[in-house]
Amino acid sequence: MTGRLYGTFDASPPAGLRADQATVRRNNLALVLRHLRHHGARPRARVAAETGLNKATVSSLVGELLDRGLVREGSVSRGGAVGRPGQALSLAGDGVCGIGLEVNVDYVAAIALNLSGAVLFDRRLPIDVPAVGPDQLCDALAELILVALDEVARSAVTAVGVTVAIPGLVDVARGVLTLAPNLGWRGVGLAAEISSRLDQPDYPVAVGNDANLSALAEYSMGVAAGVPDLLYLTGAVGVGAGVIANGKPLLGAAGLSGEVGHIPIGRADDPCGCGRRGCWETIVGLAALLSAAADPDDPVRDPALDLEQRLAEIERRAEAGDGRTLAALTRVGTGLGIGASILVNLFNPGVIVLGGYFARLGPYLLDPAMAELRARVVSPDVAGCRIELSQLGFTAAVRGGAQVALERVLDDPTLVGTPEPVDSPPAARAFQ
Amino acid sequence: MTGRLYGTFDASPPAGLRADQATVRRNNLALVLRHLRHHGARPRARVAAETGLNKATVSSLVGELLDRGLVREGSVSRGGAVGRPGQALSLAGDGVCGIGLEVNVDYVAAIALNLSGAVLFDRRLPIDVPAVGPDQLCDALAELILVALDEVARSAVTAVGVTVAIPGLVDVARGVLTLAPNLGWRGVGLAAEISSRLDQPDYPVAVGNDANLSALAEYSMGVAAGVPDLLYLTGAVGVGAGVIANGKPLLGAAGLSGEVGHIPIGRADDPCGCGRRGCWETIVGLAALLSAAADPDDPVRDPALDLEQRLAEIERRAEAGDGRTLAALTRVGTGLGIGASILVNLFNPGVIVLGGYFARLGPYLLDPAMAELRARVVSPDVAGCRIELSQLGFTAAVRGGAQVALERVLDDPTLVGTPEPVDSPPAARAFQ
Repeated sequence: MTGRLYGTFDASPPAGLRADQATVRRNNLALVLRHLRHHGARPRARVAAETGLNKATVSSLVGELLDRGLVREGSVSRGGAVGRPGQALSLAGDGVCGIGLEVNVDYVAAIALNLSGAVLFDRRLPIDVPAVGPDQLCDALAELILVALDEVARSAVTAVGVTVAIPGLVDVARGVLTLAPNLGWRGVGLAAEISSRLDQPDYPVAVGNDANLSALAEYSMGVAAGVPDLLYLTGAVGVGAGVIANGKPLLGAAGLSGEVGHIPIGRADDPCGCGRRGCWETIVGLAALLSAAADPDDPVRDPALDLEQRLAEIERRAEAGDGRTLAALTRVGTGLGIGASILVNLFNPGVIVLGGYFARLGPYLLDPAMAELRARVVSPDVAGCRIELSQLGFTAAVRGGAQVALERVLDDPTLVGTPEPVDSPPAARAFQ
Repeated sequence: MTGRLYGTFDASPPAGLRADQATVRRNNLALVLRHLRHHGARPRARVAAETGLNKATVSSLVGELLDRGLVREGSVSRGGAVGRPGQALSLAGDGVCGIGLEVNVDYVAAIALNLSGAVLFDRRLPIDVPAVGPDQLCDALAELILVALDEVARSAVTAVGVTVAIPGLVDVARGVLTLAPNLGWRGVGLAAEISSRLDQPDYPVAVGNDANLSALAEYSMGVAAGVPDLLYLTGAVGVGAGVIANGKPLLGAAGLSGEVGHIPIGRADDPCGCGRRGCWETIVGLAALLSAAADPDDPVRDPALDLEQRLAEIERRAEAGDGRTLAALTRVGTGLGIGASILVNLFNPGVIVLGGYFARLGPYLLDPAMAELRARVVSPDVAGCRIELSQLGFTAAVRGGAQVALERVLDDPTLVGTPEPVDSPPAARAFQ
């Protein structure tokens, strides 16, 4: 809507505008594929009407996408009734998957998603990441990728890319972890290390910040799917944000945006993991909740126990009306609202998605958080922003990673399969 | 660079991808025009090589752009040597202009810029805007637009659009000023009011936030021209930000982003114009500087005197080594750095451009601001961000408004002129 005023303002127009013939066709293949993905199954004629492409072009494009195994037609077999009028097309792509991995302080995880969003592989392994160090971590990640590839290969599925999510600052262009305070690491060339362990595979291995990838997962398949301006907040020991602005990830000049955890709005004397004091994390991070809710010897504060079980215990106490637990949750909710009001004033998201432990305990955080938002956001009615709890649990980052890999195919469907020459059989199919 | 990992993630592909024939041609016209604008004069063959368009297509496109008066060839007259090999093409567009207006607390201003960035009209009128009210303001703005149109019409220049910059929250889609705390206004339908006074003109009248438009001016023609991730800070009674992210204005879900002035990092008891306390503006706004630098009866605090003269006096005292003045400037610089460190952590801009009074007194603010940035930004080396002082003075917002109007032509060159039919004479021109 605002595009009408501000136009494009591109310093250099996107490559998609360079409309040589091959580019036009690739863009149109991508257009049809994304259209089916976003709007669901529909007949060729409707795809033509809705995309503005002419029917003959759509017929030819669909022919190529069928040959590449990326779309399918209704429930009728391809041999029987190809091109029959009204036959619904839908996204297929069971033959390709993206693989997402996540590194966190005490585990690594992997998932494989195909183009329809089905989970083909899902694994989580406990590992003391800071203790084993970068070399052994890369061994473990490469091993996990090989296991995932074996698993999907059994169903004749090809991986089109691997993305590793990590809680830290990432130089995305070089695939280097610049700084991960919670791991105590600096300057680790993750992408190169993993690629060399996989013998330089023909699919790309990329690295991204976990909050950015989680935001992409919410935008692609979560509670805020399709909301073009959204903000995802990770709730863990640290607090990070992933931002989608105008339908694209907001990464900043060097991919270092979204470091929200260190806004100085806490008490000036509370130390933060970053070495500074009074950071937002010191009010709303997991450690702040736990120390307010329980004594040091309380099992909910024992890092050796499973986090989900500890959060379940906190929830049980809150449900039972325990005063100290409820006060601690209200304090976190209030702090969440104070920080979120800054983010709403700055980014004006349509939705804030709460992830990690915020999502798990969200029902106790939402009211105090919304009260602060209403009091503090400058624009009327919290600038139209609502808060949603993530439904992706602890899989947001790996799902975002897998989706990033799949986007390559959605951008360029010619990466998959080897179709018949585009100008003969597909063009010969009758449109109706 | 980061695009390689994150791809497009578009919920709906831009209209430009819908490659029907007319759209392809319009996009290619825009591509050639923007290419010449960004890279300067060059021969057809080089345009073809650099854009990836084939030579015959470029020849036809250039023919149409010549007919529409948007490009010109070398110093040779069009009648003489059209299409001669190596003849340099350059942006013309002297025949079209955009008009930008600005409303501020005590003045209105207007500028007219042609496609080459030349100033065709520039006027500033003192007016007590809160006192006269919206009706009289719209009368004054409409009058100013008519004067500008008269002026440019004398050189046979056509206006392609008008944009009004205003310090407040703007509903860009409807052209409505939602809230302007410093004017005390709410819900003013500026675009409709001005259009009706101009008898519904055939060019669009739009409204935008002054900080957003200033950021666009810096991106188009200022000290950070072409930097795809930049942040502009207005320095006045209020402090606002305009953000360019990945080459596009960051507007948020409802166009309400960039409200940075109310980050609660001031002293808890300092009242802000917004009705809250401890906002960033209470440390770094103009009033905070003036009250720290001078007693209430000091002329530099007299709002009846010209602001530029008052700022010149402060600068003079600082140059003379006046302790109180220097301490006040250091305090503002430190506060600027504290707030800017949050913005760097969140947005990771390549450049922060200081505007308004920050630019005027910048030499005294930069050192303390950079010291805070270095101490507070989480990423090493301030995430690569540098601070620049705006060179556009008080014309940033009007220039941004004029440029927004001109972008319409850069997006769609067919809005200008009535060329010969595209398939005959232009295509018949020899390429070399």
